[in-house]
Amino acid sequence: MTKAFLKNAWYAAAWSDEVTEDLFERTIIGQSLLFYRDAQGQAVVLNNRCPHRSAPLQMGKRRGDVIECPYHGLRFDKSGSCVHNPHGDGRIPEKMMTPAYPVEEKHLMLWVWMGDPDLADPTRIPDFSCHTDERFKMVKGVIKMDGYYELITDNLMDLTHVEYLHDGILGSDAISRGEQNVEQVGTTIWSNRWCPDGMAPPAWDKLFKDYGKPVDHWLYMRWDAPAHMLLDVGVTPCGKPRGEGVWMYGTDILTPQDEHSTYYFWAASRAHDLDDPAYDDIWAGAIELAFGQQDKPMIEAQQKMLQLHGGHDMDDVEAVYLPTDVGPMRARRCLKNLIEAEASGQNVPEPGHRALDQLLQDDSYQDRVEPVV
Amino acid sequence: MTKAFLKNAWYAAAWSDEVTEDLFERTIIGQSLLFYRDAQGQAVVLNNRCPHRSAPLQMGKRRGDVIECPYHGLRFDKSGSCVHNPHGDGRIPEKMMTPAYPVEEKHLMLWVWMGDPDLADPTRIPDFSCHTDERFKMVKGVIKMDGYYELITDNLMDLTHVEYLHDGILGSDAISRGEQNVEQVGTTIWSNRWCPDGMAPPAWDKLFKDYGKPVDHWLYMRWDAPAHMLLDVGVTPCGKPRGEGVWMYGTDILTPQDEHSTYYFWAASRAHDLDDPAYDDIWAGAIELAFGQQDKPMIEAQQKMLQLHGGHDMDDVEAVYLPTDVGPMRARRCLKNLIEAEASGQNVPEPGHRALDQLLQDDSYQDRVEPVV
Amino acid sequence: MTKAFLKNAWYAAAWSDEVTEDLFERTIIGQSLLFYRDAQGQAVVLNNRCPHRSAPLQMGKRRGDVIECPYHGLRFDKSGSCVHNPHGDGRIPEKMMTPAYPVEEKHLMLWVWMGDPDLADPTRIPDFSCHTDERFKMVKGVIKMDGYYELITDNLMDLTHVEYLHDGILGSDAISRGEQNVEQVGTTIWSNRWCPDGMAPPAWDKLFKDYGKPVDHWLYMRWDAPAHMLLDVGVTPCGKPRGEGVWMYGTDILTPQDEHSTYYFWAASRAHDLDDPAYDDIWAGAIELAFGQQDKPMIEAQQKMLQLHGGHDMDDVEAVYLPTDVGPMRARRCLKNLIEAEASGQNVPEPGHRALDQLLQDDSYQDRVEPVV
Repeated sequence: MTKAFLKNAWYAAAWSDEVTEDLFERTIIGQSLLFYRDAQGQAVVLNNRCPHRSAPLQMGKRRGDVIECPYHGLRFDKSGSCVHNPHGDGRIPEKMMTPAYPVEEKHLMLWVWMGDPDLADPTRIPDFSCHTDERFKMVKGVIKMDGYYELITDNLMDLTHVEYLHDGILGSDAISRGEQNVEQVGTTIWSNRWCPDGMAPPAWDKLFKDYGKPVDHWLYMRWDAPAHMLLDVGVTPCGKPRGEGVWMYGTDILTPQDEHSTYYFWAASRAHDLDDPAYDDIWAGAIELAFGQQDKPMIEAQQKMLQLHGGHDMDDVEAVYLPTDVGPMRARRCLKNLIEAEASGQNVPEPGHRALDQLLQDDSYQDRVEPVV
Repeated sequence: MTKAFLKNAWYAAAWSDEVTEDLFERTIIGQSLLFYRDAQGQAVVLNNRCPHRSAPLQMGKRRGDVIECPYHGLRFDKSGSCVHNPHGDGRIPEKMMTPAYPVEEKHLMLWVWMGDPDLADPTRIPDFSCHTDERFKMVKGVIKMDGYYELITDNLMDLTHVEYLHDGILGSDAISRGEQNVEQVGTTIWSNRWCPDGMAPPAWDKLFKDYGKPVDHWLYMRWDAPAHMLLDVGVTPCGKPRGEGVWMYGTDILTPQDEHSTYYFWAASRAHDLDDPAYDDIWAGAIELAFGQQDKPMIEAQQKMLQLHGGHDMDDVEAVYLPTDVGPMRARRCLKNLIEAEASGQNVPEPGHRALDQLLQDDSYQDRVEPVV
Repeated sequence: MTKAFLKNAWYAAAWSDEVTEDLFERTIIGQSLLFYRDAQGQAVVLNNRCPHRSAPLQMGKRRGDVIECPYHGLRFDKSGSCVHNPHGDGRIPEKMMTPAYPVEEKHLMLWVWMGDPDLADPTRIPDFSCHTDERFKMVKGVIKMDGYYELITDNLMDLTHVEYLHDGILGSDAISRGEQNVEQVGTTIWSNRWCPDGMAPPAWDKLFKDYGKPVDHWLYMRWDAPAHMLLDVGVTPCGKPRGEGVWMYGTDILTPQDEHSTYYFWAASRAHDLDDPAYDDIWAGAIELAFGQQDKPMIEAQQKMLQLHGGHDMDDVEAVYLPTDVGPMRARRCLKNLIEAEASGQNVPEPGHRALDQLLQDDSYQDRVEPVV
């Protein structure tokens, strides 16, 4: 039941402001990592295990930008090299080093490359530029879910669950009736749902100042491996461009701690009411309710049910799928192919999405609600 | 160390009043089951796992007698058939169903057949008619024990432990001196202990209005597979018929949640002081003390000791048995044979006990205390 | 990842005062043991598992020096023989017995022989006579650490960690500069550290009445299998004999509960200020802080890190060692050899240390601080 993780990939490890000059630990795909910022404010990521006696370096001390192991005082610089052995003649064994991980700070997040450092290409970090784009206002957070991350990918790539699990907040009967479209360009996948001429879900209706009349509702989910999702979602009066409605980009990035639990980095980058901080609380509250009190218990209950049936992931049990599962299935197949390609040493294919900024500079984008691949 | 469970058997799943119109979950022999009553009050038992994404249906909603999955809104009727797919063209995949289990309501309990539905024969439910017979007054409950159910069968089929583990309540030194007799008719086994001419155990002496003189004490345990036991127990003046003493039927039904924990359904159906509700509390209190605070810690300690020795059940460790173990051993052998017969597709032999009601209508039953097979 | 334990060895099972007339349980190298004192005050150690139904005898009752099983009343004498079966004809099956373990009470501790009783030779109990020698004053205790015991042996046989993990209490930068010497005689190993002409560690300086001038500091650790350590440690003015300084014997005895957790018996037998009870609290406080709040979290964090890397002990992961690891490595190799010799039926070699009392009667011992093998 052990699942391989994709290694040659950027993983979102933390929001930028989670990492300071203090030593910070987070385990990602089963590896305990040490994070801190150097004197210049640059983030450093080292394997948290001292190569000597496996002590966690995170329990140690900073000596400037150098980390002193809490157990026997060995010191490691930002590159992971041991630079000081206080004992005896002070000689440092050649292999005394802890791996440093390529790290990029982008879109207010720290992205860590968990595979071969020579392959780390920062241009492959998926575009979440809405986090910093002044045409949007972002609120954000992170939730821990005790479930296998692909179960959450399934949740996000098939948003028909919104009508049931998030009934009364984000659900609307227009969602089931909506038209579904899954597209793939390179290794980027869209799972899009176009729900015209229905009543807005309650939370959206409120955001739209109690509009109360039928709207077109769209939920366009973009996926990049291993589990980086961005949702283009909103409502607008029937037949009108998005600019006449309310909409936002929803960030849904899943970073596996291990096979059993997942960090869920969420953000809402709204394109409406930028200057009214009341909407910060409205969005944060809605997401904490929907993700933390509705999705999380469901994912964890699903995980327990799979375990009761002797499995860990969906493919360990017999399941009957629906046409609406095509989005999750496409993402799973793409990730499986990437993991198999990695294992056999093949080149990683390019993600294929269009940059958000390029998209937003295209005037016609505001005028339309159909998906833009 | 994995133990097979008998599948072609009625398991006592709940007391009748535990199941209402609300959705109720209980796991039995490792299967998560959903219970509810339909509009006519009939109990329904479905596999709790949605065949689509393994969500627990118990978290869902009733739509009349139909259950709506909490995750994506699929609906299942009382037979487990999917009757509504709200998405897209609404077509329902042929295999989209969740198993329904044969269920019978009898003796104030819900009995679920966990094997081949075609073999479910309600006449095979063991007779616990004392639960509803007006010649008795019943109190009842359910205790969860973190131990393998056959350890508790061992406990019940050899009541010599009463003298030690329940010393001061149900114990008497007459019990060890007693005469033991194990009989088998069909797949029904009696483990009987006849303890004449001794002082009554303290609780019995109190029930017998501080009689204070020697009594005949009997403990006749009836077992049916997999672990349904009924104890005919009481005291009466030496040499006198049971009608001159006090006695009751004790229900001891063990339903495995899984290999590690067990639901213990208990009842005391007393044949004395029917109209005095004070005895309800006396019996409930005595049983909660004896079973909950004496048997339960012992079973759980025994389970831990077995685990420390790398085992799970008695037959995983070296053990030395006594002649008094013949009752437990006979029950274990019978169950093992039934499980093996089931695995090899043989017919299930008939249980062989005499119906309680038939027994009670036989006038001579009140006049005697010897076991009636 | 399963590690074999040395069986033909004395294990320190308890401080003498932990075992009274009450039934006391402690699990050692995975075996649940029952301890009590008989009417003469002699300690008795039996396997805690009733051979009948695996009930823990510790939940039973004393009947004089005989133990009655809590479950069915079988009775076992001090030798582990079943001496009473209360049931039926009372015959006792030949194999109905629970193993008794050789036990010696020495140095205020109970030592249990976990292997072949015929090989139990009390003269092989390592010398901790400082516990009762009136030339010392002892304080003592026991700490439970959730880690594999050899990780703690590593900690103790390489005291360079003191400077880092116990910084501000027992650490001094003279320790890293110190001279290290590892010697082996028979199966006894010394890992000695001689740290001349430095400032005393803060706790030692305080014990030395705020001496404030450079001292010679010594830390001489004696190891016997499986994990019995005694530290000869102190400070004295540079170049002066130990009698002009302050010093003590530190007891560090590790008794594995199982592969995952360890009882750490500690004592401080000080050779200074014998009559001032304030030093009892100072020593107990310092050790509870250093061992309980510094070593314990480190060992437990190290254990978790090893587990995260799919291992249990140091040799399950890749590690880079230092010259200062020679002490731990020698002890590990010696223990490994003993376990392998035991498995192949070879004779156990003799421990080789000199008796403490013999040492202390040698006047020159007080005059010198160099190690005495």
